[in-house]
Amino acid sequence: MAESTRLVDLVQTAADRFLADRESELAEIADELQPFGGFARDLLAGGKRFRALFCYWGWQSVRSLVDPLDPLPTDDRSSEFEAVIQACTALEFFHAAALVHDDLMDNSDTRRGLPSVHRRFESLHAKAGWSGRSARFGRSGALLLGDLLLGWSDELLDAGLALLADPSVARAARVEFGRMRTEVTVGQYLDILEEAAWAEHSETDQLSRAHRVILFKSAKYSIEAPLALGAALGGASLPQLESLRSFGRPLGVAYQLRDDLLGVFGDPAQTGKPAGDDLREGKRTVLIALARSRLSGGARRALDELLGDPELDGQQVTMLQSTIRDSGAVEQVERIIEHNVSLAQSAVADAPLTRAAREQLSRLAERVTQRTS
Amino acid sequence: MAESTRLVDLVQTAADRFLADRESELAEIADELQPFGGFARDLLAGGKRFRALFCYWGWQSVRSLVDPLDPLPTDDRSSEFEAVIQACTALEFFHAAALVHDDLMDNSDTRRGLPSVHRRFESLHAKAGWSGRSARFGRSGALLLGDLLLGWSDELLDAGLALLADPSVARAARVEFGRMRTEVTVGQYLDILEEAAWAEHSETDQLSRAHRVILFKSAKYSIEAPLALGAALGGASLPQLESLRSFGRPLGVAYQLRDDLLGVFGDPAQTGKPAGDDLREGKRTVLIALARSRLSGGARRALDELLGDPELDGQQVTMLQSTIRDSGAVEQVERIIEHNVSLAQSAVADAPLTRAAREQLSRLAERVTQRTS
Repeated sequence: MAESTRLVDLVQTAADRFLADRESELAEIADELQPFGGFARDLLAGGKRFRALFCYWGWQSVRSLVDPLDPLPTDDRSSEFEAVIQACTALEFFHAAALVHDDLMDNSDTRRGLPSVHRRFESLHAKAGWSGRSARFGRSGALLLGDLLLGWSDELLDAGLALLADPSVARAARVEFGRMRTEVTVGQYLDILEEAAWAEHSETDQLSRAHRVILFKSAKYSIEAPLALGAALGGASLPQLESLRSFGRPLGVAYQLRDDLLGVFGDPAQTGKPAGDDLREGKRTVLIALARSRLSGGARRALDELLGDPELDGQQVTMLQSTIRDSGAVEQVERIIEHNVSLAQSAVADAPLTRAAREQLSRLAERVTQRTS
Repeated sequence: MAESTRLVDLVQTAADRFLADRESELAEIADELQPFGGFARDLLAGGKRFRALFCYWGWQSVRSLVDPLDPLPTDDRSSEFEAVIQACTALEFFHAAALVHDDLMDNSDTRRGLPSVHRRFESLHAKAGWSGRSARFGRSGALLLGDLLLGWSDELLDAGLALLADPSVARAARVEFGRMRTEVTVGQYLDILEEAAWAEHSETDQLSRAHRVILFKSAKYSIEAPLALGAALGGASLPQLESLRSFGRPLGVAYQLRDDLLGVFGDPAQTGKPAGDDLREGKRTVLIALARSRLSGGARRALDELLGDPELDGQQVTMLQSTIRDSGAVEQVERIIEHNVSLAQSAVADAPLTRAAREQLSRLAERVTQRTS
């Protein structure tokens, strides 16, 4: 994993450099813009960097195979590498923006153990004793910081693509990035729609609708799209791109199912989120759909009644956790995770990719689906 | 103005074509995404298209001068023209996104005579009788549609820039677009900050702070940046770019001051916004700062008490309007508008730009500062 550690460092350096540039621009406009840089820096200091890793390994997977006998001249190779680092950093900025807007929509109080951005702007207002409602100021500040980060992610990608010699590679990368943005955004909408409109649909429909949310909101976004972006930067052939997608999609599903389990059963000390956060939010996940389909009418009604209540106390959370676990839904989700990981592993086993990359992808598959945070 | 009318049509066609493409992609994901296309279409069907016009005239201003004796081959010329139309359309999409997020922050009910986007998503939820709070669903829907439009504006720009033969022109255009996004976003923040923190500052400071908000939130964004983007697409020389900025900046200030007057005194039938909307919102504009500095202590306290109260009734609005008018602030703002327009006019009079463009810019300057909506 030495290469991965180095990548994470390079992405951090690129993020810091970009933020330092922007911070000095903002400081020239007004001192009061300091929170934008500070909050962005905190958001970009943490995280698992899975998106950056998958982008990098998407590129590595195809790069050395394109023409092993005719390596690129060192200069081109190094500017291509720099472009990949910039694209990885762009993904991390986009993700930071998504988290800020996501926390705003979900009204979440915390993110990675710190107050969420809207809460931080809210505190700024409250501490200064400014006029108007602090909560409203907080929401507006977070909306704007998210917008800023969206624009900045795009600038990072552009700066990377400008280093590439072949304009068709840059165009292919932009198509992937654009598709990712659209799909994750509408996936988020399908998610909130499901929270609101689930009762209109039968149990079977709820399950397939929960799968659709996973696919667009998370699976494609977190794994398939970063892999495809990296592969595009390496000038992937169609069969290579297809193998990577066939690996990324089921792995992304498994990744999100693990997230759903952590959202209900995760250890707050490790996830940085309160216990049972998804239960208070009323997320209609595959886990919940499976539990509902396995519960008796009475137990199902009790679950429906509590789910999505922002005031759930610790005892109620524990009760819901037991109900879900006792339904057998947790084991079933674990089996689906396993099944999807094995689909991913076999997609990559015989893929037209470098051996080093296949091994690395296989290790990443374990890492993203066996995590505890 | 025949050329301007034709431009507006071409931008509309480009917007419709792009939306039709995206709508069919969204339809493949889920039928429930239909409101995204529908609401976006309504947002992009109206508006004054000033940004598109300034971008186009920024390009026209420098284009024919670059080398009048060596016109571009027809093919290059037409793909450059197409790139300009795409950039104009990108500006309109960005602006649509800004309006959606702006209405969300300001909690505005209407936009161009229709319910604002968050209210439309809210109604969707309420009419369907879905679970959870309709207002919250509405806010999330609008946040996401705004994010989507931000991404799409970027795709439109990219598609345009891909048509250009010279990568350095594309890079210059991206720099202008990126700077515009950052400046308007932080300008919005300075605006909400002023609404909250105005009382901390002396009357003189309030005026200069209100000017700073105008400059970043509006003047640069609405006029200077579109002109500079267009000029960059035409390969402007530095002196040309400087003249256009010296024209655009004071004109942008005048444009926003007109907007501030309309926000307080505008006719709802023409503005599409309720009478005195800015008073309910508590916007700390130059108009308000001037009125405060001219009022006696008692009248000033009465103004401060009512300003920003979302429940102001018609009579209170009329009273505030009289107070502001009687202070003499309206005449003073009109004089500042006139002064800024004349600064803009003299900047363009001797500029190294085509004569047709200088005349056109001069006419646009009248149009954007003498409007009633």
